[in-house]
Amino acid sequence: MKDNMEKTGGRIRIVIEGVKPEVAGGCFPIKRVTGESIEVEADIFADGHDAISARLLYHHERDTHWTEIPMEALGNDRWRASFNVSEVGWYRYTITAWSDAFNSWRHDFVKRVEAKQEDIGVNLLIGAQMVAETAARATGADTEKLRGWAKTLQSKQAKLPAKTSLILSEELAQFIAKYSERAFAVTYPELSACIDREKARFSTWYEMFPRSASTEPGRHGTFKDCEARLPYIAGMGFDVLYFPPIHPIGHTNRKGRNNALAAEPDDPGTPWAIGSEEGGHKAINPELGTMADFHHLIARAKDYGIEIALDIALQCSPDHPYVKKHPEWFRWRPDGTVQYAENPPKKYQDIYPLNFETEHWQELWTEMRSIFLFWIEQGIKIFRVDNPHTKPFRFWEWLITEVKKDHPDVIFLSEAFTRPKIMYRLAKLGFTQSYTYFTWRHSKWELSQYLTELTKTDVREFFRPSLWTNTPDILTPHLQTGGRAAFMARLVLAATLSASYGIYGPAFELGEHLPREAGSEEYLHSEKYEIKHWDVERTDSLKDFVTLVNKARRENEALQGNLSLQFHNIGNDQLIAYSKHTADLNNIILTVVNLDTQRTQAGFVELPIQMLGIDPRKPFQVHDLLNNSRYTWQGDHNYIELNPGICPAHIFRIEK
Amino acid sequence: MKDNMEKTGGRIRIVIEGVKPEVAGGCFPIKRVTGESIEVEADIFADGHDAISARLLYHHERDTHWTEIPMEALGNDRWRASFNVSEVGWYRYTITAWSDAFNSWRHDFVKRVEAKQEDIGVNLLIGAQMVAETAARATGADTEKLRGWAKTLQSKQAKLPAKTSLILSEELAQFIAKYSERAFAVTYPELSACIDREKARFSTWYEMFPRSASTEPGRHGTFKDCEARLPYIAGMGFDVLYFPPIHPIGHTNRKGRNNALAAEPDDPGTPWAIGSEEGGHKAINPELGTMADFHHLIARAKDYGIEIALDIALQCSPDHPYVKKHPEWFRWRPDGTVQYAENPPKKYQDIYPLNFETEHWQELWTEMRSIFLFWIEQGIKIFRVDNPHTKPFRFWEWLITEVKKDHPDVIFLSEAFTRPKIMYRLAKLGFTQSYTYFTWRHSKWELSQYLTELTKTDVREFFRPSLWTNTPDILTPHLQTGGRAAFMARLVLAATLSASYGIYGPAFELGEHLPREAGSEEYLHSEKYEIKHWDVERTDSLKDFVTLVNKARRENEALQGNLSLQFHNIGNDQLIAYSKHTADLNNIILTVVNLDTQRTQAGFVELPIQMLGIDPRKPFQVHDLLNNSRYTWQGDHNYIELNPGICPAHIFRIEK
Repeated sequence: MKDNMEKTGGRIRIVIEGVKPEVAGGCFPIKRVTGESIEVEADIFADGHDAISARLLYHHERDTHWTEIPMEALGNDRWRASFNVSEVGWYRYTITAWSDAFNSWRHDFVKRVEAKQEDIGVNLLIGAQMVAETAARATGADTEKLRGWAKTLQSKQAKLPAKTSLILSEELAQFIAKYSERAFAVTYPELSACIDREKARFSTWYEMFPRSASTEPGRHGTFKDCEARLPYIAGMGFDVLYFPPIHPIGHTNRKGRNNALAAEPDDPGTPWAIGSEEGGHKAINPELGTMADFHHLIARAKDYGIEIALDIALQCSPDHPYVKKHPEWFRWRPDGTVQYAENPPKKYQDIYPLNFETEHWQELWTEMRSIFLFWIEQGIKIFRVDNPHTKPFRFWEWLITEVKKDHPDVIFLSEAFTRPKIMYRLAKLGFTQSYTYFTWRHSKWELSQYLTELTKTDVREFFRPSLWTNTPDILTPHLQTGGRAAFMARLVLAATLSASYGIYGPAFELGEHLPREAGSEEYLHSEKYEIKHWDVERTDSLKDFVTLVNKARRENEALQGNLSLQFHNIGNDQLIAYSKHTADLNNIILTVVNLDTQRTQAGFVELPIQMLGIDPRKPFQVHDLLNNSRYTWQGDHNYIELNPGICPAHIFRIEK
Repeated sequence: MKDNMEKTGGRIRIVIEGVKPEVAGGCFPIKRVTGESIEVEADIFADGHDAISARLLYHHERDTHWTEIPMEALGNDRWRASFNVSEVGWYRYTITAWSDAFNSWRHDFVKRVEAKQEDIGVNLLIGAQMVAETAARATGADTEKLRGWAKTLQSKQAKLPAKTSLILSEELAQFIAKYSERAFAVTYPELSACIDREKARFSTWYEMFPRSASTEPGRHGTFKDCEARLPYIAGMGFDVLYFPPIHPIGHTNRKGRNNALAAEPDDPGTPWAIGSEEGGHKAINPELGTMADFHHLIARAKDYGIEIALDIALQCSPDHPYVKKHPEWFRWRPDGTVQYAENPPKKYQDIYPLNFETEHWQELWTEMRSIFLFWIEQGIKIFRVDNPHTKPFRFWEWLITEVKKDHPDVIFLSEAFTRPKIMYRLAKLGFTQSYTYFTWRHSKWELSQYLTELTKTDVREFFRPSLWTNTPDILTPHLQTGGRAAFMARLVLAATLSASYGIYGPAFELGEHLPREAGSEEYLHSEKYEIKHWDVERTDSLKDFVTLVNKARRENEALQGNLSLQFHNIGNDQLIAYSKHTADLNNIILTVVNLDTQRTQAGFVELPIQMLGIDPRKPFQVHDLLNNSRYTWQGDHNYIELNPGICPAHIFRIEK
């Protein structure tokens, strides 16, 4: 006999497998936001033909009590049940199932009665025995009730019809279920779900360099200038305002304009070269203002419905206090210098990476955690994490879990533009949202393949995409050359393909499109290395268009999630068409974008109208939320024509 | 800091995931036969940009020493390596990987040299340091060799070209690999592979009732009669001869002919009602002969290249010795009788199931194991297990593992005709081969979907299909009404779709097709309840056709495995076309079957000829192994016409 087989092990007959949702065999939590539900399915079966009872169990990590929900058999040994999640934090869930002897017996008993079998008496005694055994497991008044029923089934006075109706009664079934014999039940390993607040799913980001917020040329922008910019940002409909690092910037090896190796005396340096004698990751660049100014800004932003998001880049300038105080956190070269950041032959002498392979990694981790906790104390609940893929996976898993223990409403955006499996890993281990390849996906085939992977495969359980039109690092050739139509099309795509998206402004709405040099994705005169002054009131600004797009998102629940995304045939490779809808089909948004920035394109969009609850025999209206026009359509093929010179997109609300 | 994070845990950076092949997350072994290879792939990556080294490790369970093979990076973080399995039993395999600091440095160093960087000196010192550290891990003469190289790299006399060529040398690389720093290596949980002998993959089964082997009407067949039948069976090309249970048959509640409730005095009863006062599962029905006769038959069969397979049905007649000796292994009813087998309203009063839920399950399991070991001692190495799905999964997992510990060449065929997930579970937990739904799959769509599931998904790693044309329990409506063409077509399908297949004879080759009653799949005058006398030399027998089909299987390696199976378009739903080939494409078999038993059907079969190594510009020959005719074809579309009145199938060997 196998050594590890316990006394009861040989009598356990249930198998639970193929459980969904589950990330990497349960190693990582699935993700949801409050108000959503978790629908759990599994293959559950046993040898033989006995009936099975299965329960979905769950609790919020704060509770100790499991709530049980009966699972429903769907056929082919598949079972299902679901529960709602109402609180942020972690939920645990699992499945327990057992062979249900009483139900098996009852099921057979009915067939015996129907077949008018003669030896029904002995079967009634078997049933009575099971009811008596249940009575022995019951407590209080239930015991007597069950004993009474057992007696009725055994009794020679009671007639068969009365016994049969007792056996089939819902009341008896409930008592049997309540005290079911679970000695040989099988329980699946516990799974977990990370529940975030709603903004984790639906968020509209605006990235901006505070130092460029001043309207006076030549003056360093401040938090006060940012406050003045709030009505403009809120007016466009953004609810997250994200700042590159706001800390003191190093002097040693500071980069000049356009990433010049040597800085001129008045060059401000890049905000990612963090730390100087004025402080490190917990300090504010004095040119931006004081901590009090920052608190004030956070409060003002809140009045406008805007949350401030900070960029956390775990790296140091040579002048960062850590370099002197914790030399053991850096990699020292044989010549006694610290190893700066490199991607040979490129060198970043103004930045020292932290050495996560140090023997003192525990102290390093603890300090890094304290940076996040510090800013949380200042009122920040959203972090955009710079290059997380160059720090250990285990570090992030630990850090995010640690931070969320006391602050489950914190959101972490992973800025990892790297290989797909690494990006997915970071999402699995805890990042709330993730940057994507969207910025470089332009053709219809690329966009539909990629978004299908993100929304229709298991990836949807752990990876929440954040689509960006542009970033301070990424000005795509398409935006460099595509003109206004390219900006409008990319905005609509980002904002409607994903419930979370962002733009880097005012560069975006002002149509900034010149690269540093041909073939580069860097901006010419990039804000990364100098202070800019933007005229946000320019008449050619896209701000009104941005406002319309964000209004469509805010007013249409269909656009506030990704899982309903469906692409539709339109018979023209330059036109991309897709819809999103709410579960009740009361809100359906159809977006069509002309990917050709030069020519008018036309086609017939093919809608699964019956699936969308539209009567194929009746006309229905589509309302373009971008230009407020309405069209009357009928059936599943309808004509679309988009002139990129006017507007390269429709965002239709389908009105039944 | 997380409590379970050890001292080094925070510096571990490698992730290994997406490992294939792997069954149910490694809970069960994959299956192979001796002479095959195991190709292992995995996603392996780390944070950052460091080079990674990965090794596939394996050993036969008897060894303790792991063999290591370097894995090759395929791109997109996918890695691969393979090894051959030469011995039956279990192999363990896993993957270990680590960040390779020296390779990372070397990779960067080359780029520095190419970019003519100035501060190359300090980088050479870093490399020298790593070589010196490797020397410290080395043993014997290797230490000195590595120290010497470290000195060369540090030396001011040696020139850069000499140093560079040392850094790039294969010899240094090998020493570095031999003594690589693996303190932070990650090793995947161990996986296992069950290696069977070749017959597990390629076997040709003939099922026969020994009691019907007598040629004299009225006489009970014996093992001697079976011996006389061996030349006939071997002549047709079968290599497994499988007998229904050969044990004494119970008297109590014995079933009569055609499953009549009451037996006549001379009715022999069903062989599955096992046990009488003459013995149980370890005894032989004296009417068949003695144990010595059985040993003699096994030896004679071996001379003909045939192995005897026994049916093990773990159930008892009411007269089985177990009932008296081990009443605790049966389920007793309140009226003091034993619970017989039932599927209400059907009753099988001649059979008592064993109660695997008994508290004495450990003794029961041990006794069941002893049955298999007993017959193995008699020389039997193949078992067809009756209804394994009505006994606990854990029991089979334990039993098969136990038996194979000392007898790794034993083959277990699972006779579970039940729901798909249960059939797959039995295969996962250890059954060598499995019955399938083939018997009820008739249309082209059904056949191609099902065989694709079995051969092109993960199912192929654990489930070896055995396709049967018929069994004593299954005479399909198709065979009842389809005539000779149906028998021929089903034979060709079974024999070419799967490397293992079987027929139940002589009923099959003699075209037995009458059901007990309309709508039934039972044979009229079934051998299950009476003794038959077959005239196997009848001129209308299909034996010559069976012989041709089995000869094609024996002579063509392509038909001896399933993984290369591919279905081909043929533009006619009544024609099914598919090919199998060896890895080197030296043997390619194309099978085309007309599924219409009545009408001639024609079509153009579409072959992926370039993939099969055929020059599209040159003619090639196809040789029909059933009628020995040859056709000259060219290009990827060629004409097929099959008249079911003559022969409903082609088995073409493609001759380039």
